[in-house]
Amino acid sequence: MNQVTLINPFKVPPFQEESFLDFWGSVAAYMRLQPGFLSTRLHKAAWEEAHFRFINVAIWESEEHFQAAIDKAEFKELTAPYRDVFPHYPSLYEVVRT
Amino acid sequence: MNQVTLINPFKVPPFQEESFLDFWGSVAAYMRLQPGFLSTRLHKAAWEEAHFRFINVAIWESEEHFQAAIDKAEFKELTAPYRDVFPHYPSLYEVVRT
Repeated sequence: MNQVTLINPFKVPPFQEESFLDFWGSVAAYMRLQPGFLSTRLHKAAWEEAHFRFINVAIWESEEHFQAAIDKAEFKELTAPYRDVFPHYPSLYEVVRT
Repeated sequence: MNQVTLINPFKVPPFQEESFLDFWGSVAAYMRLQPGFLSTRLHKAAWEEAHFRFINVAIWESEEHFQAAIDKAEFKELTAPYRDVFPHYPSLYEVVRT
């Protein structure tokens, strides 16, 4: 089992920034308590015209740990109200070049 | 001047992976020689259904350094043939939450 990186770009209109940050904070609080969670960094675009205003980059001990965290009912309840509000494109990644 | 993070998600069809990696390698070789370049990590999706097969994350000393690197004619010549081949959504970012 190798470390994996979750990268999740979010489309967020300017007037919904505060709402997004509240949402992100509550999901991050949940994630921090899950086995295998290592770290997370929320990036905010410095360019006004950016396609994705926020991109989350989190490190997990393994794909299995991350999958277990998102399979729990608690995670689904937490994210359900926002699933369609902020279009997002999550996937796990591995670093292939440096 | 603060450190900035370039995040650039790329849509790449499976059959163009090798072509993308060649392209990425030639741009990375150029970037490494530019003042203010600190590091780069190319991420490949672990999930077949990922929206973005590759995401590049690079650290630069400042927005000014990055802007100077992409303003040069050499950069434009290097990237022009691929600009429309691999849809991509670059922006500079700052970390706002950890």
